Amino acid sequence: MSSIRRIAVLTSGGDAPGMNAAIRSVARSASALGVETYGVQRGFAGLVENHFQLLDNRAVGGILQRGGTMLGSARFPEFCQEEVRRRCLDQLAGAGIDGLIVIGGNGSQQGALALSQMGFPVVGVASTIDNDLAETETTIGVDTALNTATFYIDKLKDTATSHHRAFVIELMGRNSGYLAAMTAIATGAEMAIVPEAETDPEAVADDVQQTYANGKAHYIVIVAEGARLKAAELTEYLCGHPCGFEARLSVLGHVQRGGSPTVADRVLASALGSAAVTALVEGRTGVVAGWSKGAVVEIPLEQATQLCQKVTPELLELARVLTR
Amino acid sequence: MSSIRRIAVLTSGGDAPGMNAAIRSVARSASALGVETYGVQRGFAGLVENHFQLLDNRAVGGILQRGGTMLGSARFPEFCQEEVRRRCLDQLAGAGIDGLIVIGGNGSQQGALALSQMGFPVVGVASTIDNDLAETETTIGVDTALNTATFYIDKLKDTATSHHRAFVIELMGRNSGYLAAMTAIATGAEMAIVPEAETDPEAVADDVQQTYANGKAHYIVIVAEGARLKAAELTEYLCGHPCGFEARLSVLGHVQRGGSPTVADRVLASALGSAAVTALVEGRTGVVAGWSKGAVVEIPLEQATQLCQKVTPELLELARVLTR
Amino acid sequence: MSSIRRIAVLTSGGDAPGMNAAIRSVARSASALGVETYGVQRGFAGLVENHFQLLDNRAVGGILQRGGTMLGSARFPEFCQEEVRRRCLDQLAGAGIDGLIVIGGNGSQQGALALSQMGFPVVGVASTIDNDLAETETTIGVDTALNTATFYIDKLKDTATSHHRAFVIELMGRNSGYLAAMTAIATGAEMAIVPEAETDPEAVADDVQQTYANGKAHYIVIVAEGARLKAAELTEYLCGHPCGFEARLSVLGHVQRGGSPTVADRVLASALGSAAVTALVEGRTGVVAGWSKGAVVEIPLEQATQLCQKVTPELLELARVLTR
Amino acid sequence: MSSIRRIAVLTSGGDAPGMNAAIRSVARSASALGVETYGVQRGFAGLVENHFQLLDNRAVGGILQRGGTMLGSARFPEFCQEEVRRRCLDQLAGAGIDGLIVIGGNGSQQGALALSQMGFPVVGVASTIDNDLAETETTIGVDTALNTATFYIDKLKDTATSHHRAFVIELMGRNSGYLAAMTAIATGAEMAIVPEAETDPEAVADDVQQTYANGKAHYIVIVAEGARLKAAELTEYLCGHPCGFEARLSVLGHVQRGGSPTVADRVLASALGSAAVTALVEGRTGVVAGWSKGAVVEIPLEQATQLCQKVTPELLELARVLTR
Repeated sequence: MSSIRRIAVLTSGGDAPGMNAAIRSVARSASALGVETYGVQRGFAGLVENHFQLLDNRAVGGILQRGGTMLGSARFPEFCQEEVRRRCLDQLAGAGIDGLIVIGGNGSQQGALALSQMGFPVVGVASTIDNDLAETETTIGVDTALNTATFYIDKLKDTATSHHRAFVIELMGRNSGYLAAMTAIATGAEMAIVPEAETDPEAVADDVQQTYANGKAHYIVIVAEGARLKAAELTEYLCGHPCGFEARLSVLGHVQRGGSPTVADRVLASALGSAAVTALVEGRTGVVAGWSKGAVVEIPLEQATQLCQKVTPELLELARVLTR
Repeated sequence: MSSIRRIAVLTSGGDAPGMNAAIRSVARSASALGVETYGVQRGFAGLVENHFQLLDNRAVGGILQRGGTMLGSARFPEFCQEEVRRRCLDQLAGAGIDGLIVIGGNGSQQGALALSQMGFPVVGVASTIDNDLAETETTIGVDTALNTATFYIDKLKDTATSHHRAFVIELMGRNSGYLAAMTAIATGAEMAIVPEAETDPEAVADDVQQTYANGKAHYIVIVAEGARLKAAELTEYLCGHPCGFEARLSVLGHVQRGGSPTVADRVLASALGSAAVTALVEGRTGVVAGWSKGAVVEIPLEQATQLCQKVTPELLELARVLTR
Repeated sequence: MSSIRRIAVLTSGGDAPGMNAAIRSVARSASALGVETYGVQRGFAGLVENHFQLLDNRAVGGILQRGGTMLGSARFPEFCQEEVRRRCLDQLAGAGIDGLIVIGGNGSQQGALALSQMGFPVVGVASTIDNDLAETETTIGVDTALNTATFYIDKLKDTATSHHRAFVIELMGRNSGYLAAMTAIATGAEMAIVPEAETDPEAVADDVQQTYANGKAHYIVIVAEGARLKAAELTEYLCGHPCGFEARLSVLGHVQRGGSPTVADRVLASALGSAAVTALVEGRTGVVAGWSKGAVVEIPLEQATQLCQKVTPELLELARVLTR
Repeated sequence: MSSIRRIAVLTSGGDAPGMNAAIRSVARSASALGVETYGVQRGFAGLVENHFQLLDNRAVGGILQRGGTMLGSARFPEFCQEEVRRRCLDQLAGAGIDGLIVIGGNGSQQGALALSQMGFPVVGVASTIDNDLAETETTIGVDTALNTATFYIDKLKDTATSHHRAFVIELMGRNSGYLAAMTAIATGAEMAIVPEAETDPEAVADDVQQTYANGKAHYIVIVAEGARLKAAELTEYLCGHPCGFEARLSVLGHVQRGGSPTVADRVLASALGSAAVTALVEGRTGVVAGWSKGAVVEIPLEQATQLCQKVTPELLELARVLTR
């Protein structure tokens, strides 16, 4: 029998659509096992400041379909100090909390790992639009961000075609080109520029010119924010090296973090939130709940926070072939 | 070296969002391998009538994001006659076609199997909103249909809450409760009624009454069209057995087949279309390209067209726990 | 100087997107004039039951973009009894309320008129998806309902085209054909059937056949729920009189009342809510705030609740010409 | 009886959603009167280059709901030379064209005026997302751009709230603050900065600080691209003068021109396109079809192209009151 009677849950790092669905799943799954859930405001910062609120079944009603996170999030660089982390553990002990669930991406799970290594029972839930955790194929928020970016670019193509323009579109993703590469496939973009591969501006300009010569009505190039060749830099280059289409820059920005989550993100959040509670209650801690090979997996935090590479040469080749 | 020089592609059965993306992927992947693609109008019916059109790279431009199928689809009961199928093979031979790709669900892949068993090289692409093919976790169109249904129900909840109503919502899915069960999780519906489990109207009425007594502002029950307890029948029962909320029926209907495909469906269609061409060219025929454990799989048509059960007791239990 | 210190606001009849925006505008506009606002739950029924809650500026935060009505709505046939209405006035007096704002359509404004005729200061806000109030060109909720119906039918056309089908689509609107006629123009539907004009099923069948013969890929006919020729009846007729396309019925239903309001509905609700408060405070009562000739108008309740005819022969002729 | 037998239509300037619907309405309305329509590619530039294509009823099928303009658009500074304009008239005469319809905004209608003053029968159709034509309350494309911006900002608020941020959002509109002011009302933004009024960065910073102190979870300020205080400049100021919320910049960009038009834009385009044909055929030229006081109006091009001011102090005051 489990000794877990009361758990805390927090969201950390950049927010992602579906974080609310994950909070709801944690609270209700815990409740079904007779475990009480407390929400922590504003991530690890709220731990130090002792910002706990009881999350019973009603407190998480009506949030399943809402973007953002009802618990808030915040950057908290002080957390890298061991003394600060020790204060967090004191606060958790003081509130009678037996375990902690951390909903977030790579940076947040590094925080979870640090607390876990100090001996506190912690389980993570993989949630970030950057998809930058290892050994999980996807994370909560990725699917919504992809759809937001894709439907935005579908609209941009209307005006690109009307004016015979080349649009350089910057997407988020930190060090990962996953959002950019998948969006390129989904929109049929002529080019994707990602951190996982090198691209010269001249090569892009040549391809733009070739595409213009072939009679296409527009050119779309999607640039991951983490790529070495920056979107603004490429736009400037294309403006300085005329190649048929007039070039324009579009930075999609924070809207990629917002919006009502898609079905895939709601269902993933529901499954991972529930799995994290089960793992915590059954004593399998120091892991993060992710998704791999069609099922929930529990990944040791040490492994999940390693560098990962989800943009494969095969993926980039598929994108290239299908846009011809 | 492959002897495949010219292939045909058709869409069959109920249309699904992403079929156009699959057609585009087939044509462009084939083109990259030096293989010509011909499109067949209106499914197997078009085979008999010899409706072929060349699909070069330009012919499939601009369709990636469009709903429906540019090739059309049609019911064609005559196809169960061997003589009719033999006529199809004659037409394929006459047009110099070396292989056929069939984009569709269970019924369509049974047709593909019949042609394959007569010795013609056939490869299927798993595409149907019903998700009724075995050994593939999902099929092209499911994700879009789920999102369409879910955002529709999100809107219905506004008016349900304003008027304290119980909405009985009928979704598609033929013999499968997959759409209904997943939509129930994604919308936080109070109840899902599926062919994979028995439900009595009295049990629903009791739960409605209980929910009303608990002070919730609405009740949503999602009914798969293939469930034994029909949506209309349940609505009538609830109207005859007052239980707090006034009951209303809503049949979502064919809109579930329409709309611009989501990112997941566009990417899945791109991957499966490409994989089907590769399988055909490399001589692995009599299979259908599907998705399992995070990767494309080639499933023998005999197995893929068996009965399958994707709504598990665990899934239904997750839905039940999270809506409390 | 006005003697109005405290007002009440309620929403009544079928809910409409934008009602929340109107409530917010009433509360904040009143607050800016130093007037307190109380919300009444569940329409006129809540008046009798004395369900008042203070709506300060914070209480109406975060509702601008939400569908439905935070105050709820309900049918309340007992309100036609003078004794019941007198009880309402007693409750208002007891709560120290100096004036009432009624947000709703024709039936609700008839209720407002009845209270006004008994001497209580009442001002209406025109809000219903039926657009059935006279002397106002539009009402809060119409624009959202039109867009919901139109984007739904855009999706249906995908599958209609793929299968060469005739879709008979039933829209709401009570006795008015406004939603149906405008949606027909916006979707390029082949036919609109409205209460304001007679249509024979044979004439529709002829037009379907003609359209099929002309080589179009689908046929869309939109039927107002209030039309004499009902959608179900027409579908049956078309199934019994084959005319090229296979006929299918689709009933859009209550989703037309839901969803986040469009900009036009949010702005209209903001303007009319504010205007209603001004009228009430400045002593111009027994009127409803509506929109005409590019500006807010105050329409005497007697006139606003008369029969109105917004579907003109010119509108129907425009729809007819543009779909050729 | 009219001597008009053949007309040309072009779209000019920045594209706007609904331009295709206007082209369709022109072509089909003309056809109904026995008049032939020719489309001109790429605006006034296409006139000089003699790029005409016949637009019969079928040629404009399927475009009603599509963004952009099938005729393309382009900047063409050479048009200010009388000699170039004379060449245009020669081309029109050579093609046997009796009249021209120009779909566009202020700059485009100035071009139309120039041709009209040289004696050619020209009628304009008011279409631009900037709403910068005088004596028409709105123009084709405005409603869609407003909804695109508003739903984008609804999503941004999710992440703004989660992180307690101030978002500075730049919208289009050239010299007009209409898009910015209306979007501010529709989103409940805390502040709108428009060319029609002066705003100091200190005043904004004070209001941000006040709002933070009041406990709100985010601050949204919408800045028209034509405002004297630029969005980037304001963001920098707010970052340099900490006031509770962290400031972030978001430039919405060209997506405001794209997307499927809303119902209001489709219906307006249908009405104005038809009205322009009627005016041209009936000999009322040198005018632009617009919308005022609930009806189509024909505005002399000299007046329509004057400066106009649609953002009134009352509008800004309404925005201010409702966001408290």
